[in-house]
This record gives sequence, structure tokens and C-alpha cells, in this order.
Amino acid sequence: MSRVRVHNLSISLDGFGTGEGQSLDAPFGHAGVRLHDWFFQTRTFRSMQGQDGGETGADDAFAARWNEGVGAEIMGRNKFGPQRGPWQDEEWNGWWGENPPFHTPVFVLTHHPRPSVSMQGGTTFHFVDAPLPEALRQAREAADGLDVRLGGGPSTVRAFLREDLVDHLHIVVVPIVLGRGERLWDGNEGLEQRFRVETVTTPSGVTHLTFTRP
Amino acid sequence: MSRVRVHNLSISLDGFGTGEGQSLDAPFGHAGVRLHDWFFQTRTFRSMQGQDGGETGADDAFAARWNEGVGAEIMGRNKFGPQRGPWQDEEWNGWWGENPPFHTPVFVLTHHPRPSVSMQGGTTFHFVDAPLPEALRQAREAADGLDVRLGGGPSTVRAFLREDLVDHLHIVVVPIVLGRGERLWDGNEGLEQRFRVETVTTPSGVTHLTFTRP
Repeated sequence: MSRVRVHNLSISLDGFGTGEGQSLDAPFGHAGVRLHDWFFQTRTFRSMQGQDGGETGADDAFAARWNEGVGAEIMGRNKFGPQRGPWQDEEWNGWWGENPPFHTPVFVLTHHPRPSVSMQGGTTFHFVDAPLPEALRQAREAADGLDVRLGGGPSTVRAFLREDLVDHLHIVVVPIVLGRGERLWDGNEGLEQRFRVETVTTPSGVTHLTFTRP
Repeated sequence: MSRVRVHNLSISLDGFGTGEGQSLDAPFGHAGVRLHDWFFQTRTFRSMQGQDGGETGADDAFAARWNEGVGAEIMGRNKFGPQRGPWQDEEWNGWWGENPPFHTPVFVLTHHPRPSVSMQGGTTFHFVDAPLPEALRQAREAADGLDVRLGGGPSTVRAFLREDLVDHLHIVVVPIVLGRGERLWDGNEGLEQRFRVETVTTPSGVTHLTFTRP
């Protein structure tokens, strides 16, 4: 059974998954790197960047699971880039350079479709204007029996949770109060009742939460 | 130096410290006992109720610190009881019966002062309509060199945090999404920058956070 999985989604104590004011220079808005610093230290992240080294402890054990058995990704348009509304620059192909770390089909949710783009290394960006179940159907088909990763951002994950389309949710709570940005939990009262929930704190001070279908 | 301390303040993943719809039958509103179940299992809580037994593990180690070296408490009126506005029932002396577990002076913040009430066991409720620093001054004087516990609820703690009047903050994050109620963190962006923060998860699945002055 092909599952829908979320990995390494970092939020603040007050539940914000990204800061206010995303721009080309500030992909996470006023949050800067504070939500993702634990991740940037891991071997998993460094390896995605083509670099050696990095932490190999508990944070990395969680981080590394992001890509196991995944055949496609779905992401919101705000994860793909800072443009809003009709595309002004169709040369924009994401934050990740010529060889993005996904190496699978990636379905970008947008109300402004544009032609698919094939990148180096097997990543192809498809731009989909469809209800979530239909976008998921396309991603599942592309995943060819493997799982679909729901890559974020927080408003995209929140929307899939509301429609009960997520099977595994890995959240990382960073002990900061961000104050503003995009909230993850809104509209998902009682979410825990549909999942088996585990929590564990690691020496970096973050708390890993996993929500798994019982 | 007499410190201001918060202990055992439970919040949901989405930051609510109490539910919506507090009433005589539902002190925590729609949250019921979900935020406090970890605490009710502890020896510390059972002892406050005059009962034997209870868990003596990590949760209790945190819980037990609530009363060490404390000479007075400040609480918001909504912790004291469900009445709002002018007092309709001055016979109401809190949720805790004839012998409340505080055994010190307790300063209840309210815009509707009433005469102080001495209970069994050394608890005296004083009703104070004053700015927070003045209420704190009175509590400090009553504490006679010991610490002042800020007993909650969440909106009271939030207000003291905004005025930077808290020295030690112990928060317990319960992995549920409450959806509505009284938020703790609002208006406290960047709070962590004033504190040394530690996090630890216990086998009950809650996460204890301590914010301490560096």
C-alpha cells in the first residue's frame, strides 16, 4: 500500500512552520534558519548538498528516513519558490539548482499550471491545478507503488491533514517562539485521535513527533 | 533573590493552555483532563489531594518542584473560578475545598476586589486589582524572601512573560491538537532569547520544557 508521508517538517513552539515574509533571499521569512538548523547539521542534509560530514546521531536517524521508499513528492507552490500569482519567470525551477535532491517526479500545487520541467538527476517538476485527492492520485501513479512524500510547506500539509490524506507525519518542534508566519495545526483539532503518536527529544533540544496510522 | 516561577503549565501542540468553555463542571473547558492527565498520575498530585500512591518517575520529578521554596502564589481569576465580571457568589473560594493545597498567601488578579479569605491549612486568598508589577510586589512581600509561584492560567502567564517578569518557566507540551481555547505564546515572539532552554520527553509522551534565566 502506497502511503503519504511527511518528514522533517519543523515548527516552532507556537506552531509556525515558516516565518513571515518569504523572499528570494529569505526562503523561510523572518524565521531565517532557526527552524532548520538541527537539520542542516545532519549528514543527511549535507549529503543532499553533495557534501561530506555532518552529525550522525538521533536527529540524523530521523532525517534520513525522508527518502526511503519514496517514488514521488507533492509540494506547495510556496515551497517551490517565492513567486505568487501568474508566473513572471518560468525560468525559476526551485531553490535547488540544476540537480535537485528529489530524483523523482515532483508535483507542485499551483493555480497557474506551466509545462513540466525535467531536471538533472531524475527530478521532473509537474505543475498541477487540481483538488488534493486528484493531485495525490497523479503522484501515486507516478510513484509506481512506492510512497508519496508530502514535502510541505506547512499550509499544504495542513490542508492534506484536514482531508485525512496523510499516513505518516514526522514533525520536529524547535523550542523557539516565532510569533508569526504559517501555522501547521490550525483546523486540525483532535488530529491525534487518528494516529499513534510518539515523542522523543534529542540532544540538540528539538522534539521529534511521529504520527502514524494505528 | 526571590524569583518568579511557573510550574507544570500544560499546553497542547497548538499552544493552548486551557480549552474553550470553562464552567463549574468543566474547569478546563472542552480540553477536559487531556492536558493534565500526566500530572494527575503523579505522586505529587495525589499527595496534594491527600491520597497515597501515584507515579514517581520523571513526570513526578518535574511536578514535585512546584512547591519548593515558594512563599506565595499569584493566579488569574479564571484559575480561581468560573465566574466572570462582578462577583455573584462570594461564597466561592476556589476549586480546592476547605483546605487548598497552596498553604501560603495566594493573590488572585481581578478587576473586582473582595475581602481576603483565610482557609484551612494556611492558604489566604487576596483579591488584587493592580498592574502586574504591583501585584508582584505584594506577593513578594508576602513571600518573605521565598519565591513567588505564578500559578496560571495561560493568559496570566502570557501577560507576565510579556512584561519580562518571569524567571523560571516550566511548560509541559502534551501531544494533542486542542484547536481552541487560551493560547500561551501569543505576543511573546523571541521569548527563548532571554532564557536558557532545556527540553526532555518522558515515557508518558509529554515534553517538559524549562526556560531559566541564564
